Amino acid sequence: MARTGRRPGEGNTRALVLEAARALFAEQGYDGASMRAIAARASVDPALIHHYFGTKQDLFVESLGLPLDPAVLLPGILEIDRAELPDALAELFFQVWEDEGARERMLSLVRSISTNEQAARMMREFVTSRFLFPIADHLGLPDARLRASLIAAQVVGLAVMRFIVRVEPLVSTPREQLKPMLTAAVRAHLTPS
Amino acid sequence: MARTGRRPGEGNTRALVLEAARALFAEQGYDGASMRAIAARASVDPALIHHYFGTKQDLFVESLGLPLDPAVLLPGILEIDRAELPDALAELFFQVWEDEGARERMLSLVRSISTNEQAARMMREFVTSRFLFPIADHLGLPDARLRASLIAAQVVGLAVMRFIVRVEPLVSTPREQLKPMLTAAVRAHLTPS
Repeated sequence: MARTGRRPGEGNTRALVLEAARALFAEQGYDGASMRAIAARASVDPALIHHYFGTKQDLFVESLGLPLDPAVLLPGILEIDRAELPDALAELFFQVWEDEGARERMLSLVRSISTNEQAARMMREFVTSRFLFPIADHLGLPDARLRASLIAAQVVGLAVMRFIVRVEPLVSTPREQLKPMLTAAVRAHLTPS
Repeated sequence: MARTGRRPGEGNTRALVLEAARALFAEQGYDGASMRAIAARASVDPALIHHYFGTKQDLFVESLGLPLDPAVLLPGILEIDRAELPDALAELFFQVWEDEGARERMLSLVRSISTNEQAARMMREFVTSRFLFPIADHLGLPDARLRASLIAAQVVGLAVMRFIVRVEPLVSTPREQLKPMLTAAVRAHLTPS
């Protein structure tokens, strides 16, 4: 362990909790795994988990090494005007995917989701309940959740094609040229016909 | 082998060629693997491969068990008006993904592409050179190949979110409601701002 200001034994407890959290989120999904059950699996007091990690959402983000924390991002996004939202979401996409460390973690997540139903289930539950639906419900549009999930599909597909399948000309097109096209696609999904 | 009208030994030759084709496409990509090299690997006469399988494209489709043959689809697509193309592509998407056998083969392809760079490379080369770029070049739009690849990203992302990650409400929304929204998204990509 790296030297920190933690008490002796804290590092070990944290590691046990993170391992128990990863196992239970995989087995029972994000919604199904309770903090109490994670504490029991790690043989620690539930209060200790809250003390070290905060909420279940915080623990999920930390145990999976997610590069984004919806709890941090969401309040800012919910303040954005609907007219400005397409540009803001496109900007967020490039911030995450063009940061090398974040991209590597996203790629490893995509791989586990596409090959492992347990991983797919826990990410699906987490992303929809903590990110997609709160944004959708805030929009006040007909079919808002469906529209939000189609936007997510566009964004996921762009990541897959640019960074995993590496289809040209998507790979070599600079961010400045791609961003307005992604913004336009998001805007189309937010515009009822 | 199933009983067919084939000569004795033909089944074995076909199996050898398909195995050699899968290996060489994986090692050298779609563009890099030549029919001559596949014949050499299978220790058969190149003329025999053409006789049994047709073109390199036919051999690729058969060796990978692809549910779609671009050589069959493309001529029809290239006859469609640009104004009608979004609806036709959305219709094609649902035809493939709502057929159970085709969907299973597509899912298995997505899994190998997302975890295996060789699989990603050969599918990328094949799909772009035989399907995406011919359609794009036919459109006569500015940035047509970029637009075509963004449409592909939307379609791939929708397949991932509806059939792999299984995000609601995408899973339970009936085709009739989803299709016009996919059509609108494709149309937006084909409309220069």
